[in-house]
Amino acid sequence: MIKEIKGGVTAPKGFTASGIYCGIRKNPGKFDLALIFSETMAAAAGVYTTNLVKGAPITVTQKNIENGYCRAIVCNSGNANTCAQDGEMIAMRTCDAVAAGLGIDMYDVAVASTGVIGQVLPVEKIIAAVPALVEKLSVKGGADAAKAILTTDLVKKEAAVEFVVAGKKCRIGGIAKGSGMIKPNMATMLAFLTCDAEVSPAALQKAIKNAADKTFNRISVDGDTSTNDTLLIMANGASGAVIRENGSEFAIFEEALFIVCNALAKKMARDGEGATKLITCTVSGASSEADAVCLAKSVIESNLVKAAMFGRDANWGRVLCALGYAGVNFSPAAVSLSLCSAAGVIMVCENGMGLDFDEAKALEILSESEIEIMAKIGDGAYSGYAYGCDLTYDYVKINGDYRT
Amino acid sequence: MIKEIKGGVTAPKGFTASGIYCGIRKNPGKFDLALIFSETMAAAAGVYTTNLVKGAPITVTQKNIENGYCRAIVCNSGNANTCAQDGEMIAMRTCDAVAAGLGIDMYDVAVASTGVIGQVLPVEKIIAAVPALVEKLSVKGGADAAKAILTTDLVKKEAAVEFVVAGKKCRIGGIAKGSGMIKPNMATMLAFLTCDAEVSPAALQKAIKNAADKTFNRISVDGDTSTNDTLLIMANGASGAVIRENGSEFAIFEEALFIVCNALAKKMARDGEGATKLITCTVSGASSEADAVCLAKSVIESNLVKAAMFGRDANWGRVLCALGYAGVNFSPAAVSLSLCSAAGVIMVCENGMGLDFDEAKALEILSESEIEIMAKIGDGAYSGYAYGCDLTYDYVKINGDYRT
Repeated sequence: MIKEIKGGVTAPKGFTASGIYCGIRKNPGKFDLALIFSETMAAAAGVYTTNLVKGAPITVTQKNIENGYCRAIVCNSGNANTCAQDGEMIAMRTCDAVAAGLGIDMYDVAVASTGVIGQVLPVEKIIAAVPALVEKLSVKGGADAAKAILTTDLVKKEAAVEFVVAGKKCRIGGIAKGSGMIKPNMATMLAFLTCDAEVSPAALQKAIKNAADKTFNRISVDGDTSTNDTLLIMANGASGAVIRENGSEFAIFEEALFIVCNALAKKMARDGEGATKLITCTVSGASSEADAVCLAKSVIESNLVKAAMFGRDANWGRVLCALGYAGVNFSPAAVSLSLCSAAGVIMVCENGMGLDFDEAKALEILSESEIEIMAKIGDGAYSGYAYGCDLTYDYVKINGDYRT
Repeated sequence: MIKEIKGGVTAPKGFTASGIYCGIRKNPGKFDLALIFSETMAAAAGVYTTNLVKGAPITVTQKNIENGYCRAIVCNSGNANTCAQDGEMIAMRTCDAVAAGLGIDMYDVAVASTGVIGQVLPVEKIIAAVPALVEKLSVKGGADAAKAILTTDLVKKEAAVEFVVAGKKCRIGGIAKGSGMIKPNMATMLAFLTCDAEVSPAALQKAIKNAADKTFNRISVDGDTSTNDTLLIMANGASGAVIRENGSEFAIFEEALFIVCNALAKKMARDGEGATKLITCTVSGASSEADAVCLAKSVIESNLVKAAMFGRDANWGRVLCALGYAGVNFSPAAVSLSLCSAAGVIMVCENGMGLDFDEAKALEILSESEIEIMAKIGDGAYSGYAYGCDLTYDYVKINGDYRT
């Protein structure tokens, strides 16, 4: 029995967090520095961007958690510390300052950055702010940390669950940052998870990779895989619960992790830059799950489909077109398409041909804020899904002049 | 010596064309039916969409020019005749009506359609309009045909060249339709070419495929490969010039064909839906041309790069990011990026690191209507290019409600 609960990274026992404004972002009304701290040593695992161009913080974090453990995650927004002078040194100085403030080893600190690429990160501002950041650490600080990692996101993204292992309650919590340059491949822009069960680093790595593949790797806001995508999890064992990779409890743990990651991934898609709607595409009848996911991604990444969803236009031909160029083999003559939301469901295409459907009903369905596009492509046994959002004037506005 | 000249499909000898309004589009101020006619039998070749979902006219055209010859191309806009009832029968009835009007065999007529997918094409309107369409055929009718194949395009697209083969002047002319759902793979939305040299069907097929690969297949407006992409060429020999595949004149012919296709492809990119700018990305220093082209395409397809170009924002980190996820191996530390236009050139990134460049100069460069993004990725001997356009409010507006 897995129960969704309120909160984020401080929902599990033994974790504190904080968020403050340190001066990297221009707007002092927004936090730009977050810290997540485990009171004891925690097993750690991560999944990172597949972009050849990688942010300097990723290199440093990978080295620091190579041994499978860490105790703190520090993250700034407003500057990606990527393709700029002295990036790795700046990331290491950040870890060093945080470690000194917390009284821990600098190699037990993971670091992440998000924001503009190519500008030198003013690390002195972070170093000067570390005492205040550490001072503010508390179990109530999870929301502040969730706010401090955002860039163009409109809302903070937190999720947490509670489940029982061998009579012991344990929790997984997480925060995430999405919005733009979102087409994760291995991980997403930024998501940090905590867990108070004891899990080995190897089991944690396996579980987080599986969860990422079914959640963060299923979303796309704009088809751009960022240079700084980072998903990290720390498990500190504070609940007393133990998760063994070969134990029966591992499946419960994986399911709990999926729920948290899936909730964060959907929040990310729904809060995509300029988005007004969460779009889910579900493809069934495929010959493999990989085929189904590939087709679903092709649909939710199509600018034409995305613009039609914004315009509440049941232009299903664009969905069929996006299925057709996905690179997966299927028979167009076997395809059925339906549109679904809280307002109902309507079939618009059957056996590859348009149906004479009720346009007023379709408009009603597409006026909701969560839309599902369902494609049945044949008689195969596999299905898959992907999450995206609509393409709006605001996406263009936000990205037409992001740096100023 | 190849000379660019005015005109389009009727620039070569022995071709006439026409365009009229037949009632498929709602706006009677816009033509929606085009005809291109060769006075004598012409060798014919075509390149078509790779989308699994193919428009019915493509199936019919492929059958009709299978023998390597045709005499007429009929094309309607406003309805794609794709994924709708009786599509092939409707396309054949169109060919039949045109053939009857021209007094030729229906299997010597190629047919194409562009517009909304999934609605039955009102073929009776075409059949009723054929006598007027044939009546209007003239050597001055090329521009009318160019107008009649447009959908959301703002300007008609024509190009033509003149060159000399063995003392005989000959010409190639063409018209095209682009705008949205443009990421050709094998061909582009619609382009029709004529040539008054004599060319064998096999040589014509080889030449048109090569030209498409270097021109139409290098553009992307929105990453959506349409269901109806069709590129057709007819060569009727009316100039008396003969192009032999193994003759020295074949290279001149291929170069002339490239110039016409390239001009049409660039016009298509510049007139992409909502576009205000033509964006060219040139990648040099690659290990192969295929790598260079793949990288260039990744840049011009990035929504973030496209929105930055609209906003005249020299946000080069997005260019580096798009190179990084293209799937081609290179060293980010070796990359230099420059922005170029009629207003000058500025280097913004060197050896993978941002330069402290003159933002005012960058703004001036990006304020032009043709921008080139130049990326040098290493010391390889190969380069490649791709054409695209910016992402604007109008793209969203046009596609938010296309059908109404």
